[in-house]
Amino acid sequence: MIIERVTPELDGGRFFIKSVPQETIPVKADIFCDGHDKTAARLLYKHQSENKWSEVPMRLINNDRWQAEFIAQKEGFYHYTIEAWVDHLASWEHEITLKIRDAQHVSSELLVGANLLEKAAAHAPQEDKKAILEVVKIFRDESRYDDAVINAISERLVKWIDLYPIRENVSRYHELKLWVDRPKAGFSTWYSMFPRSASKEPGQHGTFRDVIDLLPRIQRMGFDVLYLTPIHPIGNQFRKGKNNNVLCQPGEPGVPYGIGSELGGHDAIHPELGTLEDFKALIEACKAHGMEIAMDLAIQCSPDHPWAKEHPEWFKIRPDGTIQYAENPPKKYQDIYPINFETEAWQSLWEELKRIIFLWAEWGVRIIRVDNPHTKAFAFWEWVIAETKQTYPDMLFLAEAFTRPKVMQQLAKGGYSQSYTYFTWRNTKAELTEYMTELTQEEMRYYFRPNFWPNTHDINPPLLQTGHEPNFLIRYFLAATLSSNYGIFGPTFEYMVHEAFPGKEEYWNSEKYEIKHWDWEQTNKLIYVITQVNRARKENAALQHTNNITFCEVYDEQLMAYLKIQGDNQILCVVNLDGYNRRGHMIKIPIQKIDKAGWEEYIVHDLLTDSKYVWKGEMNYVELDPYFLPFHLFRIEEVEAKEVGV
Amino acid sequence: MIIERVTPELDGGRFFIKSVPQETIPVKADIFCDGHDKTAARLLYKHQSENKWSEVPMRLINNDRWQAEFIAQKEGFYHYTIEAWVDHLASWEHEITLKIRDAQHVSSELLVGANLLEKAAAHAPQEDKKAILEVVKIFRDESRYDDAVINAISERLVKWIDLYPIRENVSRYHELKLWVDRPKAGFSTWYSMFPRSASKEPGQHGTFRDVIDLLPRIQRMGFDVLYLTPIHPIGNQFRKGKNNNVLCQPGEPGVPYGIGSELGGHDAIHPELGTLEDFKALIEACKAHGMEIAMDLAIQCSPDHPWAKEHPEWFKIRPDGTIQYAENPPKKYQDIYPINFETEAWQSLWEELKRIIFLWAEWGVRIIRVDNPHTKAFAFWEWVIAETKQTYPDMLFLAEAFTRPKVMQQLAKGGYSQSYTYFTWRNTKAELTEYMTELTQEEMRYYFRPNFWPNTHDINPPLLQTGHEPNFLIRYFLAATLSSNYGIFGPTFEYMVHEAFPGKEEYWNSEKYEIKHWDWEQTNKLIYVITQVNRARKENAALQHTNNITFCEVYDEQLMAYLKIQGDNQILCVVNLDGYNRRGHMIKIPIQKIDKAGWEEYIVHDLLTDSKYVWKGEMNYVELDPYFLPFHLFRIEEVEAKEVGV
Repeated sequence: MIIERVTPELDGGRFFIKSVPQETIPVKADIFCDGHDKTAARLLYKHQSENKWSEVPMRLINNDRWQAEFIAQKEGFYHYTIEAWVDHLASWEHEITLKIRDAQHVSSELLVGANLLEKAAAHAPQEDKKAILEVVKIFRDESRYDDAVINAISERLVKWIDLYPIRENVSRYHELKLWVDRPKAGFSTWYSMFPRSASKEPGQHGTFRDVIDLLPRIQRMGFDVLYLTPIHPIGNQFRKGKNNNVLCQPGEPGVPYGIGSELGGHDAIHPELGTLEDFKALIEACKAHGMEIAMDLAIQCSPDHPWAKEHPEWFKIRPDGTIQYAENPPKKYQDIYPINFETEAWQSLWEELKRIIFLWAEWGVRIIRVDNPHTKAFAFWEWVIAETKQTYPDMLFLAEAFTRPKVMQQLAKGGYSQSYTYFTWRNTKAELTEYMTELTQEEMRYYFRPNFWPNTHDINPPLLQTGHEPNFLIRYFLAATLSSNYGIFGPTFEYMVHEAFPGKEEYWNSEKYEIKHWDWEQTNKLIYVITQVNRARKENAALQHTNNITFCEVYDEQLMAYLKIQGDNQILCVVNLDGYNRRGHMIKIPIQKIDKAGWEEYIVHDLLTDSKYVWKGEMNYVELDPYFLPFHLFRIEEVEAKEVGV
Repeated sequence: MIIERVTPELDGGRFFIKSVPQETIPVKADIFCDGHDKTAARLLYKHQSENKWSEVPMRLINNDRWQAEFIAQKEGFYHYTIEAWVDHLASWEHEITLKIRDAQHVSSELLVGANLLEKAAAHAPQEDKKAILEVVKIFRDESRYDDAVINAISERLVKWIDLYPIRENVSRYHELKLWVDRPKAGFSTWYSMFPRSASKEPGQHGTFRDVIDLLPRIQRMGFDVLYLTPIHPIGNQFRKGKNNNVLCQPGEPGVPYGIGSELGGHDAIHPELGTLEDFKALIEACKAHGMEIAMDLAIQCSPDHPWAKEHPEWFKIRPDGTIQYAENPPKKYQDIYPINFETEAWQSLWEELKRIIFLWAEWGVRIIRVDNPHTKAFAFWEWVIAETKQTYPDMLFLAEAFTRPKVMQQLAKGGYSQSYTYFTWRNTKAELTEYMTELTQEEMRYYFRPNFWPNTHDINPPLLQTGHEPNFLIRYFLAATLSSNYGIFGPTFEYMVHEAFPGKEEYWNSEKYEIKHWDWEQTNKLIYVITQVNRARKENAALQHTNNITFCEVYDEQLMAYLKIQGDNQILCVVNLDGYNRRGHMIKIPIQKIDKAGWEEYIVHDLLTDSKYVWKGEMNYVELDPYFLPFHLFRIEEVEAKEVGV
């Protein structure tokens, strides 16, 4: 038996695929053998805690391609593989049926069948075993020929053949692995902030206690992950000033990514933010508000970091004996020492980094956003994520890698739970459709969980630099409805801060270099929309998945529509990508996906405005004014009697 | 370093790819690492007779995809793989150049470079080594700073970095294999016949001596492989009569596929055809006429075959103790005993079949056409072909498997040199284009060599059942120009015999069941065309390859055009697939492929009629009358001065 082209399978089984609990895993393979015999195949799977395989019969789709599914119920690793064999009993049944229909005498065939059925009976439970052996007796009794023929083409015989296959010369595929994360890996809503800007008092350094006071506001908007930029002591040597000035003025706070001072490194807390106890209190307060903290792991040091003195062997040393600072020639970053992952002392380095992650886990942290993982060794991530998940299987890692596609993919294969994406730079309908197709319909769907961000503290994209409110609404809505995982860098985002560093995709007066003060009471249309969309995400399962998307044809290049379906929850998003003009056109609904016939009516219910429209069949009209609301978030609902006046 | 998605590679290296001598093998791979360092990669290859790897630097195409080529010069196995490493010296050169352009002081960088260059010098030949070490000295001499900077950005330094890479922490991909067949595997022209129909005397059984007399005729038509249906003694029990009649009349000759009688089996010669000496004389005579014999290996037996008595263990035994005859329920073939490849005695069976093949090889046979290989074990073919090629590397195997796509592919992966195809049933432009694309542009191009047949002794396809001469011309031309390997079942084909067994794709009065008599002197338009096309195939390298095809757009669904290019030989085929109507339309030539600009003129020279036309740029007009000739076989030639009257 040949078993090949198995999906899902990553690089010949080198890497595991991923899901969350209750997800259906469809497994397909080409299965065939020489000759004309019938083939039987089973999908085998088991959770890491189980000793015995569960089995599902595979069915032929066409052209020697077979399929079966299993549901990943529990968190942790699943193993799965395929078994196939030549099914002599099914071949026999097929052939004897044709001969009997052709009125041929089949005594000899019945004797062959008797021998095969005897083997099958061995695997049957008592009652069926008895019945099968009775048939065997009839097959061997020439005087009961007519009875034997009737039994040979009976339905119960077909059922037995299916239930009790004779598995001889079974071919088994190599074992593949699936990792099932906790549900948050698949559905999460991130709010990113600098805790030092949390104070209500202008000019004051924000603290963890200030952040606690902000939690009701963030919860109200509907976020469930609060991601904080690094909270460790900040270095003094070569500290950067406002707008990345190499000359720092006295009193300037420095960049949180210049980690480490005489007060400690990645295992210490910046004293102006509070104590470790304050931080733990914040973690607890988050839980009370239905949120989780995500910490920021930036593996790099300020020149004042304790590692620079204690472990110079983890850095590159220049010929003059000093530690090599970060460079992107001709640019120099004297405030940052990168770690040298090619060091001979990699083992002690890896262990120290693992110690940091485990320490954070002991504090209660269960989500880590990793800064620039692509400039560190792939092998390190694969190792440290596996090590962490053995002790803390609920730990999630988000890869902040904005780099070449294959490098981003490799990090995800190595174990990252979620990944930043190119969404931030995909604006047109063609770009968004192509990118979503790559993420959700091809191999990446099995291992790369996108997390969409309209902005980050590093990226102020051109479209948002306009400051145009509809553009913020559109980019927000796309992130929150295309992807089940998304985030914003707030409050910069919700207050539509947009001034850019001249000629760059960065913020002017970026929070990376200074403390901000925000008027937290202020509200606006964008905050209202965020709140409503997040509520809809919580209430509609279809928005809690990413790969369940189908794009609909809309005959306007600026109007984009997509359907998301989960069980009986059907969500239709329609977006006007043109933030400056009202657009209207026909939209074509793939009605077979929503189980409607061409003449059937259905309701599209806008969950943001509560408007309802009666639509019918495939082609329907939409019109969106960006100054009112540049999108519909429709739930497709059944027409109720009163709605159509019946 | 990650090296992945290597092409060509079959099933993770489980199977070898194939080529013929002088073919260029392009090898591509995704190659990348973490971080921003420069990458270097080499393609390594060696012939099985060599101990040392040859190396070719790979170049970046885009998106981390790299490519290099090697030419398979010799027959036999080649090994190939890829090595990649982080190129610290190239990274250093890149960075120092940027810094020098930015007018930075680079003393420290020069010292780093000195250390790296010292390592590189170790691999350099004496002269370059001396020069490099001189530069190292300058780099380390602070007093020669200006000189050092000039050297650091010098062209010779860049050349040295490329020539003498520092290979540390090299990642090597697993080894892959290429089998290089003799040229005939890639370019062959088959004439298939029943030798018993070779006699000039009506009613007489043809002999090998009669076949020898026919060789000049077959050579004249341009064929170079003469494939004979089985030449072994034919069984008597259940012998089939005319038109597959189960009742054989006395004197009827039987089916050559009912192999074996008391006179012997696969190692014996049917006495009415002649002696083994006669057969060897035929083999020699073929050589003298530039041809080779292909024998037919049908692994099955008549009930009279010696194996049936001597090795009942190689067959399926029915419960009544008799050997199981062949069946395709409800049809029975009592004249044939199939071999049971699931026998416990498979080892002695395999050895006996190998003995037969080796015996034929000793007779001088170097091509074997295998009948129905898909009903025998894949593992057997892989073994026996490998065993045979170890002793007779020039032996070629053609798989006559008309079955499901994946089974046909698996046989080719297992080692078959050529394969029958679905061409016989692909008639429309869309069908032919799609099928050719699958065969020549996708993975199959690396291991599946198609052999196109417009008819065989088993298949009389519907289009040819019309007996319409243009249909024969069209199907012949397509086979002979789409594929570099093709064959016809003659003389049935060239004399346009077309009467079908009612309701079937088989011949009425098929030669399988009776001896035919042919008037070998008779000639016709089809024979003329065959002769001309085969001459053109011999004279034009572009027609000696299959994967070098590009389809051209023609704005008529019955007009089809394709370009084949090999070196500077450019062939353009234009076919009217409608055998009943004159068709004319514009054809779009992909002029960048033939190195012409839109305003440039060129000659299309019809090699069949010797007509020449002056064409210009992309769009040109063609018109084909099927009653004259339904195709052009153009060679694209340069305009000569006199032709355009300059």
